Amino acid sequence: MSFLDHIARCNNAHLSQFEPWFIGSTRAGFIHRDFAPALKAPLFTHRDGGWHLDPSLDTSATRSDAMHAFLLELRAAGQFGAMWRDESYPVTWAFADPPLMTMERVAVPWFGVRAFGPHLTGFVRRKDGLHLWVPRRSYSKPTFPGELDNTVAGGQPAGLGIRDNLIKECEEEAAIPRALAEQAKAVSAVAYWNQSGLQLKPDVMTCFDLELPDDFTPHANDGEVHVFELWPVRRVFETVRDTIEFKYNCNLVLIDFFVRHGLLAADDPDFFRVVEGLRRPQPSR
Amino acid sequence: MSFLDHIARCNNAHLSQFEPWFIGSTRAGFIHRDFAPALKAPLFTHRDGGWHLDPSLDTSATRSDAMHAFLLELRAAGQFGAMWRDESYPVTWAFADPPLMTMERVAVPWFGVRAFGPHLTGFVRRKDGLHLWVPRRSYSKPTFPGELDNTVAGGQPAGLGIRDNLIKECEEEAAIPRALAEQAKAVSAVAYWNQSGLQLKPDVMTCFDLELPDDFTPHANDGEVHVFELWPVRRVFETVRDTIEFKYNCNLVLIDFFVRHGLLAADDPDFFRVVEGLRRPQPSR
Repeated sequence: MSFLDHIARCNNAHLSQFEPWFIGSTRAGFIHRDFAPALKAPLFTHRDGGWHLDPSLDTSATRSDAMHAFLLELRAAGQFGAMWRDESYPVTWAFADPPLMTMERVAVPWFGVRAFGPHLTGFVRRKDGLHLWVPRRSYSKPTFPGELDNTVAGGQPAGLGIRDNLIKECEEEAAIPRALAEQAKAVSAVAYWNQSGLQLKPDVMTCFDLELPDDFTPHANDGEVHVFELWPVRRVFETVRDTIEFKYNCNLVLIDFFVRHGLLAADDPDFFRVVEGLRRPQPSR
Repeated sequence: MSFLDHIARCNNAHLSQFEPWFIGSTRAGFIHRDFAPALKAPLFTHRDGGWHLDPSLDTSATRSDAMHAFLLELRAAGQFGAMWRDESYPVTWAFADPPLMTMERVAVPWFGVRAFGPHLTGFVRRKDGLHLWVPRRSYSKPTFPGELDNTVAGGQPAGLGIRDNLIKECEEEAAIPRALAEQAKAVSAVAYWNQSGLQLKPDVMTCFDLELPDDFTPHANDGEVHVFELWPVRRVFETVRDTIEFKYNCNLVLIDFFVRHGLLAADDPDFFRVVEGLRRPQPSR
């Protein structure tokens, strides 16, 4: 592996397998050609190489309700297995814009809708250099069990600010008290286009840094983390560079951290490709 | 002005006015349609919507020599006014790759060749927050006289590493001694596509941060800076956001600094557009 390999691994989408879908004239996401047979009129109609949500649904609330009813049908037909989350995610290409509608979390990648999760790197500044808090995901998590993760990371639901959500996740996932979590700073954003089977994640991760006091130890409050360990940044750097031990998209947040903290040389042959690759506006195919 | 306005102001290129030019099968840059009449065979021939350098020039050295002779002709014809620099810049789309050839600095934007200058933000960490060293360009500089600038910035010649060049520029432009300059960290890169008349700059700026001791004061060693002032970061933030007092591309380096140092909120409506806009892989139109 290399940093560029991780970027390529995240940006594995073949967009030619997908068609866009629209709410009015606004592109809301992408639908895989092999998932499209599950769609049905009048909720979705096809024209001009794209899918269009029923235009008679003219408010966010009516769209969300109709989509929810449809997703429940798909669920009853076994589409989502045991993965239903009962969490509403916003459907929008720009998080700050009012969402076009909301959608159950588990359906988001089936409809190629952009998600906006906060990812926090918690670090300690010691005399011998930076150290990072590295959690290992619980072995009982349904997704990516046992893999290494960012210090705190979570999905971004509708109706909650990204910073407020991050503060909530800090408490739930790492027992970081509010007064400490409020010191986290939004410092970057990483974008990638990931495909997993028929699902597409054209996601943005909002990157936060949080310098933690030397005497603070995070621990899992919600059972999602198996264990937290404090690693010298060089060990994190080498583990990211050489292995796939971290959950795939978490590597990108850490690579961005390495760049911002000066751990990648300007004369490194990959320097520019890494910096540009971390914010991929279009799929690489 | 706003941060997004500065990004749009830098990314003002109309690429439809340009055609690419190639060395072998590699795109080397872009030539404005209205500058193209100055080109002549056999050095440049036109086919398939692009210009092609004489393929009989099959080494970097022969290309560089032939181009140099041609540029001297253009200079004799008054093309570059008084701006000849006698500095060789690399012709390459990726700085770490061996350059396809070198080219006199003043000609680089006429041939739409990517330049790779280091830009350093020198800052002081005080109890009342970050302070940045802000130079005002000499009023006798031929370009952007009297405008505000990044603490240290320079062109990137061929045959010198970016970091070594930065250290050299630190000494020349701000009298920052080598031992101090060596602590500078490459932390980001900002890319933009700027057009000025017939000239195109598809440039990358390599961003360095340097924390300076409170008792150090930079001063101009080479007459290029009128004066250095130490500003609270909030004053820099507001000056960038609200004015065009900084040289156009220096705003982007400072906006990147503001993001990396947590001065832009994750919930700011412009947060993602700013982060993505700072690394523009293609012109905006």
